[in-house]
Amino acid sequence: MPTSSALGGLSTAPSLAGIPDAAAPAAQVVDDLAAITRPDFPLLAQTACLGQPLIYLDHAATSQKPRQVLEALQRYYDHDNANVHRGAHQLSARATEGFEAARAKVAAFVGAASPREIVFTRNASEAINLVARSWGDANLREGDEVLLTVMEHHSNLVPWQLLAARTGCVLRHAGVTPTGELDLEDLKAQITDRTRLVSLVQVSNTLGCLNPVERVAPLAHAAGALLLVDACQSLPHMPVNVAALGCDFLVGSSHKLCGPTGMGFLWAREALLEAMPPFLGGGEMIQDVYLDHSSWAELPHKFEAGTPAIGEAIGLGAALDYLQAIGLDRIRGWEKQLTRQLFDRLGAIDGVRILGPTPEQQPDRGALAAFTVDGLHANDLAALLDSAGICIRSGHHCTQPLHRLYGIPGSARASLSFTTTRQEIDRFAEELQGTIGFLREHS
Amino acid sequence: MPTSSALGGLSTAPSLAGIPDAAAPAAQVVDDLAAITRPDFPLLAQTACLGQPLIYLDHAATSQKPRQVLEALQRYYDHDNANVHRGAHQLSARATEGFEAARAKVAAFVGAASPREIVFTRNASEAINLVARSWGDANLREGDEVLLTVMEHHSNLVPWQLLAARTGCVLRHAGVTPTGELDLEDLKAQITDRTRLVSLVQVSNTLGCLNPVERVAPLAHAAGALLLVDACQSLPHMPVNVAALGCDFLVGSSHKLCGPTGMGFLWAREALLEAMPPFLGGGEMIQDVYLDHSSWAELPHKFEAGTPAIGEAIGLGAALDYLQAIGLDRIRGWEKQLTRQLFDRLGAIDGVRILGPTPEQQPDRGALAAFTVDGLHANDLAALLDSAGICIRSGHHCTQPLHRLYGIPGSARASLSFTTTRQEIDRFAEELQGTIGFLREHS
Repeated sequence: MPTSSALGGLSTAPSLAGIPDAAAPAAQVVDDLAAITRPDFPLLAQTACLGQPLIYLDHAATSQKPRQVLEALQRYYDHDNANVHRGAHQLSARATEGFEAARAKVAAFVGAASPREIVFTRNASEAINLVARSWGDANLREGDEVLLTVMEHHSNLVPWQLLAARTGCVLRHAGVTPTGELDLEDLKAQITDRTRLVSLVQVSNTLGCLNPVERVAPLAHAAGALLLVDACQSLPHMPVNVAALGCDFLVGSSHKLCGPTGMGFLWAREALLEAMPPFLGGGEMIQDVYLDHSSWAELPHKFEAGTPAIGEAIGLGAALDYLQAIGLDRIRGWEKQLTRQLFDRLGAIDGVRILGPTPEQQPDRGALAAFTVDGLHANDLAALLDSAGICIRSGHHCTQPLHRLYGIPGSARASLSFTTTRQEIDRFAEELQGTIGFLREHS
Repeated sequence: MPTSSALGGLSTAPSLAGIPDAAAPAAQVVDDLAAITRPDFPLLAQTACLGQPLIYLDHAATSQKPRQVLEALQRYYDHDNANVHRGAHQLSARATEGFEAARAKVAAFVGAASPREIVFTRNASEAINLVARSWGDANLREGDEVLLTVMEHHSNLVPWQLLAARTGCVLRHAGVTPTGELDLEDLKAQITDRTRLVSLVQVSNTLGCLNPVERVAPLAHAAGALLLVDACQSLPHMPVNVAALGCDFLVGSSHKLCGPTGMGFLWAREALLEAMPPFLGGGEMIQDVYLDHSSWAELPHKFEAGTPAIGEAIGLGAALDYLQAIGLDRIRGWEKQLTRQLFDRLGAIDGVRILGPTPEQQPDRGALAAFTVDGLHANDLAALLDSAGICIRSGHHCTQPLHRLYGIPGSARASLSFTTTRQEIDRFAEELQGTIGFLREHS
């Protein structure tokens, strides 16, 4: 395993030796973060079929992992592996310490008031389901309303549909503007005195728009509703702070944050978690168990039944250390440059239509572009690009209702990260243009 | 990372070069599996505080991981990492292939009829909760009965308590015999025409007894009830086959099977899974999503919402490959020798009382011993042994009701694996004797 790093130093606490002027405001200095970070990502150095360099532009589906994360996993399993919170021995103490330190890192990453507000889940979907099953089943009655948006990922639609089937609550959906942004006026108009929860994505995985969550929060609260934010596509790309957003619940996903799979989290205000009944039952989440009844553990353990994803939490902690060593402002600065380049190059290709706002319309939009090409199928584009070593996604990106709204079965999507190079975007655009030409000739 | 292995060959498919006569019946040949396998477990080679060799006797809480599992994780993240079932590109295809191959390995490991019968969960607790929430909520009515046993782990008690609170179903609990085995007559007597489910552990994590699941199955089925088996403590130590057991549900845990944390599984007969409603909603588990309703994916995806624990599944697959390369019959043969030695040594110490049947009373009992020492606290024993580098567990081992039945607040527990050496058991017994003497002198 390589031990040198462009981020330098120990893998648990990367120094900033290789990064110039980490404290400088992002607006003034935009570093080529790809040049700095690529040595940490072995996967991105591989060649694709036919010896072509692999170009991975599917970061919104899942991120790649820096070697620091793998090293943290290996260190945990080779030195400290034990069950947590249960043992009297040194391994268990070390495993517990590492696991709870990871929780504290997540808390700090999102600006939580306390690690007690962080519940580890398998993924962000489970975190939303936890809220729907625990808070929803306990608080919603027939006719109560949950306000979503038409751009939500399936993970922020289906749990509420299941809740509606159980409780009789009603689902509403705010629309989008002609530029593919959240229609805030429509959202406002759909808040009623029966609205109990507003749940929406911060950055759409398809439109790429950044939704003004901090403006939605007072609207929801004024109606007596709570606000849940799906931050899966924002957390890897920009600073996110739950206090600044003013939300009540926020969910995130490790595998989209350079961390391992099998790990997500729910942040919620402590008073909410205190009042919510348990979701899953088992070890870890109990205080005392009798044959016919039980009492529950303190937060956050009340919501974590069974042996948790210990290694995965530690890996996520290492990933957050890595991201913070770079700096989320610097990541955003570099990715904004890349996004403008991506839009410029795609916009110059005849027949390409990009969903969502342009960087001119929304300068803080996400670092991705979902697009269609007149007369061609997204799957064909993706398959041909793959044969050139370029990995993009095609399909509905888990936003079928949004695609249906646009009258399209699916789209192609290129999504970026701080490891993306300008050359990769150029090559992608060139290959896309060539692919479109090829398909037009042969169709 | 070391590349040589006592198991030889490639880490994904370890050859048996280093293991003599793998096909010989376990009853005739008992290999010293510790000598063969220890080189694969870096954690077990570490020294504890004061330079003493670390002796890990807490395998029932969590297993250690052979380097083949870490290598599989590293290979996945460094070469194939992508989201599954969604992408058009080569990484996604490889990730999906690895993930589904792991499912097939789990299916083969438990003798499932098809990989469609394997649902990946975070841990065994979630698997039981899935059955309680999906099958239980859909099928149980007020007055219906769920029959458990007094020796169940909290993970097989609390989900049913939560179900009882939701549905009004009634929980019953079969008792134990004076030797600390399942009281089959009592279980039989407690099956009524209202019994809908019998759910019990195959090997108790505290008593160590092996329960005759294959005799319980016809009793349950004759009453029209289903049978769920918690196989967490049996799967790592003996061959387990769902068809031979005759059960309807079976749950297992990766981290107890030499695999990563963050991964467990539910096996269920396909017809049951087909009939069960979804548990969690989100991506992966859907066929078509509309704003107000959705349809569900084919099995097993219907029960796997969101991005699954891809790396963890692949790691579990590597762990099962490793265990099967050794052979579960050979593991059982070696561990039975170790267990007899453990009981002999503990039995010779004045004041030690072991819970559960002796190897003479039940030759196939599990490779662990939970015990009390007259007049001393288990926590004190464990803490002093830890300072000698010996890791055992003390407490209630997530079986509070069982400990309450015995009138004790907790117990100490030493649990073994195929990596355990005879020398470690001797040293543990000597240190325990010394610790008891020390505590008696100083109390």
